[in-house]
Amino acid sequence: RINGERLWDSLMEMAKIGPGIAGGNNRQTLTDEDSEGRHLFQQWCKDAGCTMGVDEIGNMFARRDGTDPDALPVYVGSHLDTQPTGGKYDGVLGVLGGLEIIRTLNDLDIKTKHPIVVTNWTNEEGTRYAPAMLASGVFAGKHTLDWANDRVDADGKRFGDELERIGWKGTEKVGDRKMHAFFELHIEQGPILEAEGKDIGVVTHGQGLRWIECTVAGKESHTGSTPMHMRKNAGRGLALITELVHEIAMKNQPNAVGAIGHIDVHPNSRNIIPGKVVFTVDMRTHLLDKLNAMVAELMERAPKLCEDIGVTFEAEIVGQFDPPAFDEGCVKAVRNAAERLGYSHMDIVSGAGHDACWINDLYPTSMVMCPCVDGLSHNEAEEISPEWARAGTDVLFHAVLETAEI
Amino acid sequence: RINGERLWDSLMEMAKIGPGIAGGNNRQTLTDEDSEGRHLFQQWCKDAGCTMGVDEIGNMFARRDGTDPDALPVYVGSHLDTQPTGGKYDGVLGVLGGLEIIRTLNDLDIKTKHPIVVTNWTNEEGTRYAPAMLASGVFAGKHTLDWANDRVDADGKRFGDELERIGWKGTEKVGDRKMHAFFELHIEQGPILEAEGKDIGVVTHGQGLRWIECTVAGKESHTGSTPMHMRKNAGRGLALITELVHEIAMKNQPNAVGAIGHIDVHPNSRNIIPGKVVFTVDMRTHLLDKLNAMVAELMERAPKLCEDIGVTFEAEIVGQFDPPAFDEGCVKAVRNAAERLGYSHMDIVSGAGHDACWINDLYPTSMVMCPCVDGLSHNEAEEISPEWARAGTDVLFHAVLETAEI
Ligand SMILES: NC(=O)NCCC(=O)O
Ligand SMILES: NC(=O)NCCC(=O)O
Repeated sequence: RINGERLWDSLMEMAKIGPGIAGGNNRQTLTDEDSEGRHLFQQWCKDAGCTMGVDEIGNMFARRDGTDPDALPVYVGSHLDTQPTGGKYDGVLGVLGGLEIIRTLNDLDIKTKHPIVVTNWTNEEGTRYAPAMLASGVFAGKHTLDWANDRVDADGKRFGDELERIGWKGTEKVGDRKMHAFFELHIEQGPILEAEGKDIGVVTHGQGLRWIECTVAGKESHTGSTPMHMRKNAGRGLALITELVHEIAMKNQPNAVGAIGHIDVHPNSRNIIPGKVVFTVDMRTHLLDKLNAMVAELMERAPKLCEDIGVTFEAEIVGQFDPPAFDEGCVKAVRNAAERLGYSHMDIVSGAGHDACWINDLYPTSMVMCPCVDGLSHNEAEEISPEWARAGTDVLFHAVLETAEI
Repeated sequence: RINGERLWDSLMEMAKIGPGIAGGNNRQTLTDEDSEGRHLFQQWCKDAGCTMGVDEIGNMFARRDGTDPDALPVYVGSHLDTQPTGGKYDGVLGVLGGLEIIRTLNDLDIKTKHPIVVTNWTNEEGTRYAPAMLASGVFAGKHTLDWANDRVDADGKRFGDELERIGWKGTEKVGDRKMHAFFELHIEQGPILEAEGKDIGVVTHGQGLRWIECTVAGKESHTGSTPMHMRKNAGRGLALITELVHEIAMKNQPNAVGAIGHIDVHPNSRNIIPGKVVFTVDMRTHLLDKLNAMVAELMERAPKLCEDIGVTFEAEIVGQFDPPAFDEGCVKAVRNAAERLGYSHMDIVSGAGHDACWINDLYPTSMVMCPCVDGLSHNEAEEISPEWARAGTDVLFHAVLETAEI
């Protein structure tokens, strides 16, 4: 079994970097705080006897050698970047849980046949630079490195420039590594495990996602002196589409979701009717056909709603992945581990996207989930118990041991 | 008659300061550009032989002496600050039209009994610091100077600090000046004069205004893993209230308007359900009872709409003025001037708020309006013809001459 206290201490230590304003974290990708968190993780890996590789997109790979020089490594990991108002565990648990496995193997002086590599994937959250899981997506060949480097944040700063600025652009070619398997431990970010009273979620599938960036254009004009019938109020387009997205998600129950999280209003002045509103619709479900039908309905109805109020509608997909089905062997390794250790468990579909979803396209992959309080995540109040963290890491440990072979 | 070419040249010269991105201006209050525009205006006033007074809130008063030492000055003026995406004439025409009157009096070597003072009121637009017409409001005793100085912009910068920073905090006590009368020339910012083919609007009344800053609070959480029934989506509150405001304005036709121009979404991340949205409702009409009823309906229905979707609603009035009725004598002076000069004219209600609305509470006041293309304002494409500018300034000139006495 892993050392739960040491794991918790490391989680709390990492949470000191880029503190939020309400007990959580703001350690967004490619900020100074991201860099500081990476340095701390690197130091811990060095202390645990690992060698560190960094690729051209900043992905970090801490390696503990195996006994068989020909055996491909078993990878574990997740991400250290957070939302602007993020929690202390989303992503971090998966990275530091991986490190805890290495530390435990060292304590017990266990050698594995396959090397073990703990990974920190760059820009998982996608909030500063869309899309989410950007660097694991480049690793998996979903995007080119050039395209990723050209992403810009809200201040117009390029991804590639910011990566160089914080000093974490490595030399390794992205995607050059081969994996025996990949395991990602993550908090559920939803309410199911807690409600069912289970310690462990054995993740068999994930939801697919579409991020549709919409631009509604009207005509900016004076809120006081423009008669109602002459208005082209882009804000009304946003309003109608907000409710349309909700309606589409509701009629595709169960297991479909939709919302608008990011909204930019132009010129955003109290006495100017909005001339343009840019916003991103987030739609998800675990069935590909249903997901595509939801997007199709949005694309069909939104332009008409906008036309009726005299504004225009344009849309572009800025992030997407299809619902993944994880590798049966890896899923079984996770389920076996939970069973062996005596933790209560259930099969579960991941509501969020994860780096594991991309890696799953290349190599045998699965995920371990632990509950989080009230299913709350992407909120500074995100919380888990030390017991949940330990149970999840124990299961990760045993699934990895089974796969990496002693 | 005034010199229309000289007036136009000055308008174009001023428009070079704080250029926008689409042919208009971004010369927001208390920015470096605002300061630069003030310096240019001050230089022009000096060249025209005026003395300049500046009060503690940055209002500028350029004075041309009269022949009677006991006669109170006739004031004219408007504002040089603009919206973030503003036009070249909104406010500026009224200030530089006032200057053109002084220049014309100098050309013709006319002495008036009453002094004439051209005013530039600070922060008329209210976009950087709510409310609009802030400095004329302090002048008129509607707000205290301390309260005005404590206003903060979106970056948390205090009004008082920014005024000092740009070097335009004067020493004169705000409101210490007495006026014989006040005249403000302004573009209509609406479509009526152009549609009716009139050169001049004789402004008899104005619309009243309420700015209601609303805060809808829900719970920020993950867009993917939070089931629909557990969401508290503050963005939906914004959507429902956007449509409610529209509905209230429509059912109070004719001559009522309502919209939301400014929206702040927290934390504004693509994969976080908005936990809080702060936005300002702008409602106006020219009948006080109707205006109050519109606000009452919003205040009654908005909380229920929000409650139904699990979010909370709070509201605060951050800007307001009741519908003004301008001074009969001053209105007559404007109408007489238009008549005498042979310009087509009509009585009109101002759709926008103006500094004249506050000054009207203290001293005899009225306004002259000229058309603008397509009624468009608070838009960089705001446009007027040189002929309209000249006609408006001619009428201002003659109304002032009649009032200031030769
Ligand atoms: N796990 C997680 O929150 N990932 C961010 C990508 C997403 O929005 O699902
Ligand atoms: N004239 C003008 O646009 N003033 C700003 C105040 C308002 O919103 O009416």
